[in-house]
Amino acid sequence: MRNALITGGSGFVGSHLVGELVKRGIPVTVVDDLSNGSIENLQDVLHDITFVKDDISRSGFDLSGNFDAIFHLATHPRSFSLADPYRNLEVNAKGMLNVLELAKKRGSKVIYTSNSGIYGEPKFLPVDESHPDDPKTPYDATKLLGEHLARIYFRIHHVPCVIFRLATVYGERQKVNEKLNWRPVVAEFMRRVLNGETPVIYGDGEQTRDLIYVKDVVKGLTLGAQMDSADGELMILSTGRETSVNQLLETLVKITGIEAKPRHEAPIPGDIRRMVYSFEKAKRLVGYEPSYTLEAGLKRCIKWYRCTR
Amino acid sequence: MRNALITGGSGFVGSHLVGELVKRGIPVTVVDDLSNGSIENLQDVLHDITFVKDDISRSGFDLSGNFDAIFHLATHPRSFSLADPYRNLEVNAKGMLNVLELAKKRGSKVIYTSNSGIYGEPKFLPVDESHPDDPKTPYDATKLLGEHLARIYFRIHHVPCVIFRLATVYGERQKVNEKLNWRPVVAEFMRRVLNGETPVIYGDGEQTRDLIYVKDVVKGLTLGAQMDSADGELMILSTGRETSVNQLLETLVKITGIEAKPRHEAPIPGDIRRMVYSFEKAKRLVGYEPSYTLEAGLKRCIKWYRCTR
Repeated sequence: MRNALITGGSGFVGSHLVGELVKRGIPVTVVDDLSNGSIENLQDVLHDITFVKDDISRSGFDLSGNFDAIFHLATHPRSFSLADPYRNLEVNAKGMLNVLELAKKRGSKVIYTSNSGIYGEPKFLPVDESHPDDPKTPYDATKLLGEHLARIYFRIHHVPCVIFRLATVYGERQKVNEKLNWRPVVAEFMRRVLNGETPVIYGDGEQTRDLIYVKDVVKGLTLGAQMDSADGELMILSTGRETSVNQLLETLVKITGIEAKPRHEAPIPGDIRRMVYSFEKAKRLVGYEPSYTLEAGLKRCIKWYRCTR
Repeated sequence: MRNALITGGSGFVGSHLVGELVKRGIPVTVVDDLSNGSIENLQDVLHDITFVKDDISRSGFDLSGNFDAIFHLATHPRSFSLADPYRNLEVNAKGMLNVLELAKKRGSKVIYTSNSGIYGEPKFLPVDESHPDDPKTPYDATKLLGEHLARIYFRIHHVPCVIFRLATVYGERQKVNEKLNWRPVVAEFMRRVLNGETPVIYGDGEQTRDLIYVKDVVKGLTLGAQMDSADGELMILSTGRETSVNQLLETLVKITGIEAKPRHEAPIPGDIRRMVYSFEKAKRLVGYEPSYTLEAGLKRCIKWYRCTR
């Protein structure tokens, strides 16, 4: 990979990927309309990259320069897709076409981050790539369309492409977004515990998630970019470990030394009870394995959170 | 069903559906932008219906009136989707959102015609609804998105909805479209045989299709509109019969009495070798069964073709 374009590069996951590529000395261009990401997320690397403020979904979208790899992370957030399915369609579907057309013109490989939520309620555990799809929101449906379009562009136009569905990502710079009512459990707990507020658990707290540290996601994405036969294969990036909401809170309490007694509220309707994903396919195809235990990842998050308050 | 809206009602399948509903005395509104359909297709019923020339995919699309059923047949054709994936996305995806939003506002049931091509190369025969999806063109991918969006609107907004994937439809008013390079095999053979031209067979002619007469499709769609639990179920409308291209030509020769020796050309790359679909689910859920044998359907087509030349 001699150079890379990162769409959505000023977002949570995107900015970590930018940081990693800059560290490796790879010239990086970021395109982002800053609708959800922020320049603040890129403050450490801003002189090392080319930043283009643009909307990937606009008609006639184009970018000069040749890119070996296009990491396509820009997305319309899940929590907004029900309120605005039209904008969701525009960003996730028309934006995908724009990215694929750009890749076709410039001979780029596309690394597309999709969404493990597409599997819906798990029929077996751990969920692997053979699990049937059951998109439950316009967001799920348009991310799935993006996967199909990527494979179609590979088959018909020979645009190399790798697709990753991500487990529940956490890490530095992930924020609770009140406006979007987007409350990732790790970010929310961390904020509450470190601010001496009462964490809220919906239901009994025995519901589980596969929590992946953002730097493990970045590792998987960069391994994907090096894949020779980028033929539209779909891979899950996960830890293969199940963590309950109660265990997560206990681990946070243990690491911070702050006593935090949770308040229990009614379960969220439709909340998935147990979730864990296999990363065996990503291991086999690109040599991916997670490097961070939950404790190691959380420690880094807490340090960041304490320094930025 | 006290009244119905039919999108794409001036197209091949749409106009047959309009005719059937008018015959039953149901007030029908047709919305069509006439990009592919034509008013000619509706000439016999034009005083009996309300015709609205409009593009279902435009921003702010709306229609006054309450509709018990919306038959959503308007689509961007498959053969154009590779050349113009953006317009394809607009018509098939944004158009679908517009139709679902209209149904949500007006309390309508949506009967959505999708595409059996989504299954791709068959992994078993007959293909049934459990067969995995493998969309091969932007058209397939956006029709599949439409199915997902319909189910999501049912789950979240309680918009009743029935989804049909159609086998290879033939019948009166189906035309070879030179501009789109769209040559449905029955229409093409019929035109050539009746005009005394040499029919062309690509490959050995032993490739098979499930050929469904348009009036059987109309029957399935109207049965779907009567379904009580319209909960986003997907059903195939087919005949369950496999007909080879050679058999089709032989049947045409037999019915017309015109000797037609075919010319063989190279097989079309990616042409599916065998295809037949099960209609068992549609039979079980809505009581659908095909009424027309291939011979019966072809006879009606030939009569129409001879009268309109």
